[in-house]
Amino acid sequence: RLRILVTGGAGFVGSHLVDVLMRQGHQVTVLDNLYTGTRDNVQHWIGHPNFKFLLYDVTEPIHMEVDRIYHLAAPASPPHYQYNPIKTIKTSVMGTMYMLGLAKRVRARILLASAGEIYGHPLESPQSETYWGNVNPLGPRACYEEGKRVAETMMYAYQAQGNVQVRVARIFNTFGPRMTLGDGRVISNFILQALQGRNITIFGDGTPKRSFQFVDDLVNGLIALMEGGYDRPVNLGSPEAISLEDLALRIQLLTNSSDSNSIVHLPKTGIEARIRHPNISVAYKELGWQPKISLDEGLQQTIRYFREVLDT
Amino acid sequence: RLRILVTGGAGFVGSHLVDVLMRQGHQVTVLDNLYTGTRDNVQHWIGHPNFKFLLYDVTEPIHMEVDRIYHLAAPASPPHYQYNPIKTIKTSVMGTMYMLGLAKRVRARILLASAGEIYGHPLESPQSETYWGNVNPLGPRACYEEGKRVAETMMYAYQAQGNVQVRVARIFNTFGPRMTLGDGRVISNFILQALQGRNITIFGDGTPKRSFQFVDDLVNGLIALMEGGYDRPVNLGSPEAISLEDLALRIQLLTNSSDSNSIVHLPKTGIEARIRHPNISVAYKELGWQPKISLDEGLQQTIRYFREVLDT
Ligand SMILES: NC(=O)c1ccc[n+]([C@@H]2O[C@H](COP(=O)([O-])OP(=O)(O)OC[C@H]3O[C@@H](n4cnc5c(N)ncnc54)[C@H](O)[C@@H]3O)[C@@H](O)[C@H]2O)c1
Ligand SMILES: NC(=O)c1ccc[n+]([C@@H]2O[C@H](COP(=O)([O-])OP(=O)(O)OC[C@H]3O[C@@H](n4cnc5c(N)ncnc54)[C@H](O)[C@@H]3O)[C@@H](O)[C@H]2O)c1
Ligand SMILES: O=c1ccn([C@@H]2O[C@H](COP(=O)(O)OP(=O)(O)O)[C@@H](O)[C@H]2O)c(=O)[nH]1
Ligand SMILES: O=c1ccn([C@@H]2O[C@H](COP(=O)(O)OP(=O)(O)O)[C@@H](O)[C@H]2O)c(=O)[nH]1
Ligand SMILES: O=c1ccn([C@@H]2O[C@H](COP(=O)(O)OP(=O)(O)O)[C@@H](O)[C@H]2O)c(=O)[nH]1
Ligand SMILES: O=c1ccn([C@@H]2O[C@H](COP(=O)(O)OP(=O)(O)O)[C@@H](O)[C@H]2O)c(=O)[nH]1
Repeated sequence: RLRILVTGGAGFVGSHLVDVLMRQGHQVTVLDNLYTGTRDNVQHWIGHPNFKFLLYDVTEPIHMEVDRIYHLAAPASPPHYQYNPIKTIKTSVMGTMYMLGLAKRVRARILLASAGEIYGHPLESPQSETYWGNVNPLGPRACYEEGKRVAETMMYAYQAQGNVQVRVARIFNTFGPRMTLGDGRVISNFILQALQGRNITIFGDGTPKRSFQFVDDLVNGLIALMEGGYDRPVNLGSPEAISLEDLALRIQLLTNSSDSNSIVHLPKTGIEARIRHPNISVAYKELGWQPKISLDEGLQQTIRYFREVLDT
Repeated sequence: RLRILVTGGAGFVGSHLVDVLMRQGHQVTVLDNLYTGTRDNVQHWIGHPNFKFLLYDVTEPIHMEVDRIYHLAAPASPPHYQYNPIKTIKTSVMGTMYMLGLAKRVRARILLASAGEIYGHPLESPQSETYWGNVNPLGPRACYEEGKRVAETMMYAYQAQGNVQVRVARIFNTFGPRMTLGDGRVISNFILQALQGRNITIFGDGTPKRSFQFVDDLVNGLIALMEGGYDRPVNLGSPEAISLEDLALRIQLLTNSSDSNSIVHLPKTGIEARIRHPNISVAYKELGWQPKISLDEGLQQTIRYFREVLDT
């Protein structure tokens, strides 16, 4: 039984992680400022003797005693992290530094939720962990991309100098229940549009590709990474890339909505990557991890969740 | 007459900048923790009514009233910044954030001393400001390179969100009097070796190239950038690239030392960039700036300085 801190634990990924850790019997503290997360996501644990919720901001130093830190706090969807870029950078750099300071002091092991976005607009596909990336330091996504990159740099500086046990997960596009309906990401947008009988909006020609993993697979990967012995960055994502056009068609099909809506093409925002596609051979080799849930199965569960939210 | 703060003003570049600003009649405050700088570099101003020296660390918040901030504090030579990577990152990220907070509060204009290193191991040569760079986020230079990159990202986030007037100089290899003799950079190493009758040590085959600007040229560029109207990043460096082999030969010649030493080739450290070479057309077009002092002239002045230091 470990004392586990989950920053960002009231968010989409964090709350699913908390569910598994709580079921495993650990003592879990969620630290979250509820910027994009909600109390609802962890409501079912409130009052449980092993659970604690701290309304707190990771841009402030914090002192506590823990064995593990899952450091997930950070707005993850582009509209959220671009809403206040200064805050996004502070969350990434100060947040990670304080968590590393904490990890060093109490000798906790710390896992950083990094992102496939550190590869930027990749010139290599699929992206391996050895790829250095192609990021515009002044672009509209830089607050997130550069923030995560320097957070990774800090992790390994504290490993080398401070003897901190670090784990770095480079998370690729993830979806599932508890995604925020209005978060602007492609899967949530498409499902919402399909269920509400609005047109499905593809920005651009629909040829860019993404690989989507279901959140339960990611959570298993995060725990395997934390508890395993491998300490270099690990891509966690689906190895199957799909075009936006095909994604739209699948969601239309699974929601049975092709009578009530059409797929329309809007102008590109101009800053999206053409492809995000992880090479996950390191995760497989070092952790024995690979996603198990198919895209269709994951989409069905997510559509069910969206229906429920819309019905209430 | 402006109130000007120079962080890192007791260092190599900073102290030359301070000399010019003081001669222009401004009120100058140097903020420096003397990690790599020395009081000697600004000794000649101590006691002057327009001059103030603050022994302070930029990783702590600071409140004062100023019109201009030249934010140069950061160890610049690889052995210095790799000595304590955690501190290097803190200096870059916390230091820049506090200076931006200060600039925002007092509506000061702020110039960041960024670096040609943000381009990493460039795949494009010469490097233009539009090039995104090729940086290993986990390499031994990452604390410096990623620290400077995210510092730039912060600058433009505060410009966009906080209405801060920002200037960003991407400084390329600079040399001149007051370089630290033992700082491990190529010019200081070669001159010191030549003057002490030791062999000149080239790491590798001597074909990598660098472009070296004399510090007086850089200082003119920094002031032109600060006082001009252009607010995007500007490369400041010499447009002439020279191989390490040719540099060694020039220094041997100018020190008249070919009888007492030879040029030897040692193994590469394996992490050096093959080339750093700025495209300076933006600086020329926007600021009318280009270096005026030839490499030989600059080397002669620097050799004279090194001789004086060695004699005392
Ligand atoms: N979901 C994805 O597709 C994806 C992809 C790559 C990386 N990630 C990373 O995974 C992590 C979780 O992402 P998510 O999808 O669950 O996002 P989310 O927005 O649902 O969750 C983030 C949580 O962090 C909290 N938070 C944000 N700033 C905070 C601060 N300063 N202090 C305290 N709490 C703060 C939010 O309130 C929220 O509960 C993030 O670090 C994200 O960058 C996610
Ligand atoms: N010299 C070059 O070739 C070169 C090239 C690219 C960029 N730069 C940049 O120019 C700036 C000045 O470089 P330099 O060559 O004069 O280096 P330097 O090491 O001589 O000067 C840096 C100064 O900053 C001070 N400093 C370091 N950390 C500090 C902290 N935490 N708080 C307060 N002061 C601190 C040092 O004591 C020193 O006086 C740096 O930002 C550097 O990154 C220099
Ligand atoms: O339990 C702790 C220990 C440290 N820190 C913060 O983490 C940062 C980095 O820690 P480190 O030990 O590197 O910093 P130092 O105190 O040595 O500057 C510092 O700002 C600390 O205030 C924290 O928030 N909680
Ligand atoms: O309603 C939408 C939302 C997003 N996208 C596109 O879907 C891709 C994935 O966007 P998302 O923001 O979900 O993820 P990211 O680009 O960060 O991987 C990008 O090319 C977006 O332009 C789209 O076509 N329609
Ligand atoms: O004169 C000032 C004003 C601000 N700051 C610091 O600069 C940082 C960034 O400032 P900002 O206004 O963005 O921060 P906020 O206080 O809004 O979090 C904060 O940590 C402040 O403590 C400072 O050192 N001097
Ligand atoms: O005694 C030395 C010191 C440096 N170098 C090489 O000179 C180049 C410039 O090194 P420096 O550290 O001065 O600058 P940077 O690599 O940061 O541009 C690199 O290829 C170094 O390997 C060398 O050959 N001999």
